[in-house]
Amino acid sequence: MSGTEFDIIKRYFSTGDISRADVILGIGDDGAVLQVPGGKELVVSIDTLVAGIHFPEDTDAASIGYKAMAVNLSDMAAMGAEPAWATLSLTLPEADHSWLQAFSRGFFELANQFKVQLVGGDTCRGPLSITVQLHGFVNNGKYLRRDTAQPGDFIYVTGTLGDAGLGLYLKNGKFDVQGKDYEYLLQRLDRPTPRIGEGIGLQGVGHAVIDISDGLISDLGHILAASQAGATLYADMIPTSPSFNAYKELITEGTWIDMAISSGDDYELCFTIDPKSRDILHERLPNIPCTCIGEINVSSGLRCILENGKEFIPAAAGYDHFRGR
Amino acid sequence: MSGTEFDIIKRYFSTGDISRADVILGIGDDGAVLQVPGGKELVVSIDTLVAGIHFPEDTDAASIGYKAMAVNLSDMAAMGAEPAWATLSLTLPEADHSWLQAFSRGFFELANQFKVQLVGGDTCRGPLSITVQLHGFVNNGKYLRRDTAQPGDFIYVTGTLGDAGLGLYLKNGKFDVQGKDYEYLLQRLDRPTPRIGEGIGLQGVGHAVIDISDGLISDLGHILAASQAGATLYADMIPTSPSFNAYKELITEGTWIDMAISSGDDYELCFTIDPKSRDILHERLPNIPCTCIGEINVSSGLRCILENGKEFIPAAAGYDHFRGR
Repeated sequence: MSGTEFDIIKRYFSTGDISRADVILGIGDDGAVLQVPGGKELVVSIDTLVAGIHFPEDTDAASIGYKAMAVNLSDMAAMGAEPAWATLSLTLPEADHSWLQAFSRGFFELANQFKVQLVGGDTCRGPLSITVQLHGFVNNGKYLRRDTAQPGDFIYVTGTLGDAGLGLYLKNGKFDVQGKDYEYLLQRLDRPTPRIGEGIGLQGVGHAVIDISDGLISDLGHILAASQAGATLYADMIPTSPSFNAYKELITEGTWIDMAISSGDDYELCFTIDPKSRDILHERLPNIPCTCIGEINVSSGLRCILENGKEFIPAAAGYDHFRGR
Repeated sequence: MSGTEFDIIKRYFSTGDISRADVILGIGDDGAVLQVPGGKELVVSIDTLVAGIHFPEDTDAASIGYKAMAVNLSDMAAMGAEPAWATLSLTLPEADHSWLQAFSRGFFELANQFKVQLVGGDTCRGPLSITVQLHGFVNNGKYLRRDTAQPGDFIYVTGTLGDAGLGLYLKNGKFDVQGKDYEYLLQRLDRPTPRIGEGIGLQGVGHAVIDISDGLISDLGHILAASQAGATLYADMIPTSPSFNAYKELITEGTWIDMAISSGDDYELCFTIDPKSRDILHERLPNIPCTCIGEINVSSGLRCILENGKEFIPAAAGYDHFRGR
């Protein structure tokens, strides 16, 4: 890394409040030197956000910084890992000081909250794109995976679905909405809270776990494909927030159920458990609603049914970067 | 990661020959799960290559794949680390099968050679850009750093400098050159060999170590800035290859010395040692020439002198992605 670049990293990204004892050598050399605690396995995940693909070109820099950290933290949550260190590769059209300041503010807002230290990075010139890699720990053998759903398992989700999707829909549709509910939906879109504590709580309880970044249908589909199983989803049992409910009548593309099961960016967890573990589940995750939305079976594929017994046919699948929606 | 993307990773990047025992969970989940051996520290480095900035748009995909791995391996070498695991984030304008096939061939050519396993990745649509993160190990406390050069240290480089720069110069200048020497220079440009063994050999010998990616002047400058020291460089002692010497008369922008000390992409190591360690150095690195090219002193800045005692003023500094050359 050369002069100006080095200054960029130094100037905007040495500002995290976190200084971890397990960081032996942080930013400023050819690599970072780190100490994984004894009895722990290392979990790593890498994700890239590209302007115009993962966020609209005019998204404010603080939200981009926040989200770049959030999507990776959500992967850590899905592995049951405790996050520790981040690296950042930032490709920028130009070294814009106010943009960098806002980006780093958003990035560290979440990093500091989860005690994540930035330990290395790379900056270069080019079309705006952000790659973050996170490193976390799990106790030996205690990580969560997606390929271990069992027939008979109940399927759960944390929190509520569709908030981020509806927020984006209202924002882009130029609806004349305002007030607390709209603000809540935008907050869910721009400032999602990764379910780190919940992921750790699911160790030893969750059979298969994934985070919902591309939409429930798509991400649950990964669990099913990896586990070679099928599922029945109780479509009208999908949990939604009061703010979602306040605006769901405005949805004209598909139904509210489509919005809740197909839109991405909620960063909730979807997981399966043995029905016998229901009580343990609620003890482990006392601070967040977990809703049973279906069950795993031996069939192949995903079938959605309504309370009245009729089948629900989703209008769209989740997001695919090469196919589009 | 969604359907098509997932297939891309699976189809082109599950093909490495390396299956390491310390990889507990590799590609296919929200994160990889890895076991750092006891008594070792983890070293991580991340680097991004952007089309049109780090390589010409028309570079063949195999060379891009090779180089994406090479630049990170070179960072591992500069830390004295033994590489182990890679993650890859690939942003592509389209899912072009022949491009992906060639890219992955180049990527794994080098990964397999150094026993590096690809453990995770992300693909998305956008302007071509490749981010690789490498993970390696050093024995506790034995890593190499850049901020520990001491006044009186001798400055060394491995191998020869300027080959990649001259190769690019000849290629772009449409000179009518061909034959073994030209092929050698192009090989050094497109297929650099990271100095992994040499980096490990420098543990306990090198005071300050860096890899030369942006040009000697620029990278030695990082050692000096980090170590708060100055240096005298013996400009006409810079080692060059016979192939470089065969064509150096064709250089019209600056002299051959400028080409050797300012052009990047050689991926040799520059390091400083106590003069007393000279014999140990050559025992440790028996298979590669190491040339003393200057010494560290207490002054600030870098002064280049010629054998005749006159000062040499470099025509250009190293590469800076935001300033250009």
